[in-house]
Amino acid sequence: MPEQLIIDCDVHVGPKNPEEIKKHLDQRWWDRFAMSSRDIYSHPTYVNRTDAVPPNGNPIGSDPEFLREQLVDEYGINHVILLQRPFTNQIPYVEYATALSSAYNDWITETWLGQYNHDGVFKGSITISTQDPLGAAKEIDRWGGCPQFVQVLSDSGARAPYGQSQYYPIYEACVRHDLPFAMHAGADGIGISILPSTGYPTHYIEWSTCHSLSYQTHLVSLLVEGVFERFPTLKVVLVEGGVSWLPTLLWRLDQQYERFRSEVPWLRRKPSEYIRDHVRITSQPLESPVNSRHLLKMLEMADAERILMFSSDYPHWDFDSPKHAFPKLPDTMRKRIFYENARELYKL
Amino acid sequence: MPEQLIIDCDVHVGPKNPEEIKKHLDQRWWDRFAMSSRDIYSHPTYVNRTDAVPPNGNPIGSDPEFLREQLVDEYGINHVILLQRPFTNQIPYVEYATALSSAYNDWITETWLGQYNHDGVFKGSITISTQDPLGAAKEIDRWGGCPQFVQVLSDSGARAPYGQSQYYPIYEACVRHDLPFAMHAGADGIGISILPSTGYPTHYIEWSTCHSLSYQTHLVSLLVEGVFERFPTLKVVLVEGGVSWLPTLLWRLDQQYERFRSEVPWLRRKPSEYIRDHVRITSQPLESPVNSRHLLKMLEMADAERILMFSSDYPHWDFDSPKHAFPKLPDTMRKRIFYENARELYKL
Repeated sequence: MPEQLIIDCDVHVGPKNPEEIKKHLDQRWWDRFAMSSRDIYSHPTYVNRTDAVPPNGNPIGSDPEFLREQLVDEYGINHVILLQRPFTNQIPYVEYATALSSAYNDWITETWLGQYNHDGVFKGSITISTQDPLGAAKEIDRWGGCPQFVQVLSDSGARAPYGQSQYYPIYEACVRHDLPFAMHAGADGIGISILPSTGYPTHYIEWSTCHSLSYQTHLVSLLVEGVFERFPTLKVVLVEGGVSWLPTLLWRLDQQYERFRSEVPWLRRKPSEYIRDHVRITSQPLESPVNSRHLLKMLEMADAERILMFSSDYPHWDFDSPKHAFPKLPDTMRKRIFYENARELYKL
Repeated sequence: MPEQLIIDCDVHVGPKNPEEIKKHLDQRWWDRFAMSSRDIYSHPTYVNRTDAVPPNGNPIGSDPEFLREQLVDEYGINHVILLQRPFTNQIPYVEYATALSSAYNDWITETWLGQYNHDGVFKGSITISTQDPLGAAKEIDRWGGCPQFVQVLSDSGARAPYGQSQYYPIYEACVRHDLPFAMHAGADGIGISILPSTGYPTHYIEWSTCHSLSYQTHLVSLLVEGVFERFPTLKVVLVEGGVSWLPTLLWRLDQQYERFRSEVPWLRRKPSEYIRDHVRITSQPLESPVNSRHLLKMLEMADAERILMFSSDYPHWDFDSPKHAFPKLPDTMRKRIFYENARELYKL
C-alpha cells in the first residue's frame, strides 16, 4: 500500500511527432496542419504560385533574374513596384516592429533596388509600422532622399482607422518627401491589429473577401477626418482590396455628408471629390462578374480611368495576368490604368 | 499647526449644473452635450423628424392615430412592419437583455399589435438578444404562434458574425415558426457588441456610413458558414444598411469561392446563388448618386426586383418618402419592391 494517495492535476503530454496527430485528421486539413499556427487567418493551401520557384531552388520571389523572365519580360512590364511585407503592424513591441521594418528597408536597398537593379526596372516601398508613428516618420526620413523608393507602405491591419490623428506624423513625413502612403490588404484582426473590419470570421475565404471592408473603413476615416485638407499634397494608395466597392461607398458617404456636415466643418468639398486628387487603387484582385459589362459599368462609375493602377500580385497564387485580367477596355482607359496613372503618381 | 500634513488623492467635484460647462463649449457641441453619454456613437442632432411629434405632445412614434395620419394615410400604405428596438445586444447581463426584449414584445403585443390595431395595418417583429441564443430561441417560441408577428429582429451590432454556430438555436427557432430573421443596423462597437466592422471611427457620419460594412460581414458569414444549407427554409432580412454594395460583394465572394471551396465543402452552390432564395434587403436609406441611371444599373445588378423591399424608416430624420426616394422604376420592379416582395416574405 502506498503511504499516500496522490493525484497530480497538471502533467503535460504530447505526440512523438506531428504524424501521430496528422493520421487522425482528414486529408483536407493536412496543408493547414503543416503551417505555423501563429497566423490566425492562414491561406488554406499555398499562397504562392507553385510555378514561381526559381530554377536554382531558392525561395519564391527571391531571384531577380527569374522574376524578370517570368514577369517583366513575359508581359513587357516597364516598372515593377516592389512591396516587401514583414507584417510588422501586428507586433506589440513597437521598437522591434520598427527595427524589423528598417531591416527590410536596408535589405531591399542593397539588393532589389541596388545590385539587382542594373536596368532600373524595380522601384521600392519604404515599409513602416503604423502603430509606431514617430518611429515610422523617422524611417521615412531615413529613406526619403533615395529615389529608388516611390512610396511608403504598411498593412490595412491596424489599431484604428487611418484618418485618426495619431497617424499624422506619418503623413507629415510622406508629404515632406512627396511620397504616397500605400496600404496593402492584410494583418486585419491579427496580433495588435485590433481593427477587425473583416469581423473575426471563421474562414480564410471570409477574411480575404472582407479585406475590401477594411479599406472602406480606412478610406471613410481618411476622407472624413479631413486628412486631405490637412495634407493637401498627400496621396494614398489602396493595394489589393478591390475597386468596385468605391462608387457605392462614396454615394453613401456623400449622402451622409449632406446630413452631417456639422460634424466635420473642416471639409470644404464632398468626400467623393477628394478621390481623384488624393486616392489611387491597384487593380488585383480585379472583380470578375459573370457579365463583364457589369464590371465595365462599375469601372466607369469608379472613375477607374483616373484612379486605377494595374497590379499583378506576382508571385502570389491569385496573380492577375496583364493579358487576361481585364475585359476589353476603351483605349484611353487601358493606357491610364496600365501605365499613365502609376507613372504620374510615382513620377516615373 | 496641524498635527499631520495630509494630501487626499481622490476627491470628486462637479459643476452645479450643466450650464456651467456648456458656456465653455462652442455652440455646435450643445446638442451633443444635451444627450446621454452612454451611446458612444450618438446622432449629432435629432434622430427623429421634428414634425413627427403627435399633437397631444406624446413622444414621437408613440401615437398610432397620428402615425396612421402622417404615414399610412398620407402615402396609402397597406401594411407597416413595426420594429421596436431596445438595443439589447449591447447589454452584458444576458438575463436582463432577454428580459428587456421580452418586455418590449409583451408591450407591443398589447398595444400596437393589439388595441391599436383595429384595421390590422400593423405587423410586428419579435425582438431578441443575440448574445443569449437559448433565451432568444425561447422568446421566439413564446410568440411564434401569434400571427401578428411576422419576423424575428435584432441589431447588426453583435459579438461575432451571424453565420457562426453559436447563433444556430436562433435560426432553428425561426425555422420552427417559419419566421425570417431580420437584423437592423445599429449598436456596432457599443457595449459588448464587439464586432466593430464599422471600425471604431471618430464621428457619427463615419459610423453610420459604415453600417453597410457590418451587413457585409454578417452576410458573408451566413453564406460561407452554410447557414442556408443547414436551414433550407431560413430567410434573412437586412434592414437599413443600403443595397448597392451587394453586387460587388457577391462578385468578390464568388471569386474567392472558386478558389477556396475546399474550406467550405458544405456549400452546394456559389454564394451569390443563395441570395434570391434566402435574403431580402430593405430600401431605406436608398443610395442616391448624382446620376440616377447609376442607381438603376446597380439595382439591376443587385436583382432588386426580387430582393429589395421598400422601407421608410419613419419617424426618423432620414425618412425615405414612398413618393420621392426612388427614381422612376420599371413597373414590375416597382410593384415587387413596394409590395410583392414583402407580401410574399411576410405572407400578408
